[in-house]
Amino acid sequence: MKISARNILKGTVKAITAGSVNSEVVIELPGGQEITSIITKKSVAALGLAPGKQAYAVIKSSEVMIAVD
Amino acid sequence: MKISARNILKGTVKAITAGSVNSEVVIELPGGQEITSIITKKSVAALGLAPGKQAYAVIKSSEVMIAVD
Amino acid sequence: MKISARNILKGTVKAITAGSVNSEVVIELPGGQEITSIITKKSVAALGLAPGKQAYAVIKSSEVMIAVD
Amino acid sequence: MKISARNILKGTVKAITAGSVNSEVVIELPGGQEITSIITKKSVAALGLAPGKQAYAVIKSSEVMIAVD
Amino acid sequence: MKISARNILKGTVKAITAGSVNSEVVIELPGGQEITSIITKKSVAALGLAPGKQAYAVIKSSEVMIAVD
Amino acid sequence: MKISARNILKGTVKAITAGSVNSEVVIELPGGQEITSIITKKSVAALGLAPGKQAYAVIKSSEVMIAVD
Repeated sequence: MKISARNILKGTVKAITAGSVNSEVVIELPGGQEITSIITKKSVAALGLAPGKQAYAVIKSSEVMIAVD
Repeated sequence: MKISARNILKGTVKAITAGSVNSEVVIELPGGQEITSIITKKSVAALGLAPGKQAYAVIKSSEVMIAVD
Repeated sequence: MKISARNILKGTVKAITAGSVNSEVVIELPGGQEITSIITKKSVAALGLAPGKQAYAVIKSSEVMIAVD
Repeated sequence: MKISARNILKGTVKAITAGSVNSEVVIELPGGQEITSIITKKSVAALGLAPGKQAYAVIKSSEVMIAVD
Repeated sequence: MKISARNILKGTVKAITAGSVNSEVVIELPGGQEITSIITKKSVAALGLAPGKQAYAVIKSSEVMIAVD
Repeated sequence: MKISARNILKGTVKAITAGSVNSEVVIELPGGQEITSIITKKSVAALGLAPGKQAYAVIKSSEVMIAVD
């Protein structure tokens, strides 16, 4: 499946914290930076996510803000 | 200002494409990956963004999806 | 690619209205209902979208609100 | 109340899964497709949502992505 | 229509800036603070928005971040 | 840090409801209106949020919808 989201960042699952409805998933990027995602517990199971597994952080460009010091 | 958004990724402005209301800003991360953001033209001006300038891509964790091959 | 977004609704592209940075894409669902999406012009081109083509409306569950009469 | 969200899809509540802060609500559309929403537990109560009840899935067009095979 | 969005802030339309696909709408709240919204041009027309008119800024609680000095 | 989000509304933390992954934070604005935010528990701790503390509700303009009676 090819998707319109402009940000598809390849990385590795570093940690997963499960909640009641949602779970927190941390992806480590090649440059060492981390991206934290909140997705539903059902999605974590459906994607078979686990620490060490390769995954993509997918972000619609209209959801990305910019900041400067 | 300290913000609740869990993803504050430091990088360099690579390109800016202006539209009528919105503009497209591409940030290059240290690992070489790029993040595309859509923000309003007024925000680009207010932040003084320009290619080569240091900036952060700021993303609320609930806006990040995960994908696998 | 398999994605965590819980809503992947199959339909047909009905109309595309191009703007300067963004474009408006209308997808018709099997039940006759329509879903309107705003994505960047570059994404429309990258996906090769055109009226009559099969496509999916992809929506993260945390972006869906509920209303009642 | 009339709202700017371009996607107001009429359907029937199929299932509700309660969490600690959020709940997962599944709406079935006339064509048989389902839309999953994550809203707060307080909103589920305030709207009086229950399986079998008529409800609308409301989605801002800028939150809808498009994908193709 | 009653909606699950937890933030329905009553105010007055202060300004509207039209773009090609989107428009920027500024709402002034009773306390004098302003909220800026980006909605499609079609929505501005459908709601009959104009400076001086009463309107609500509607925001899903999961889209609101918090910051401190 | 200066951010592109166009809505940075100063107020006071009125209430915090903790969940398993997320927490609900209510901010009271000068005009008496309230804004509800859902952020992660970790962010509440990182920002040192507590009732009575000054804080800002930060909202990207593309996340704000408009409604009329």
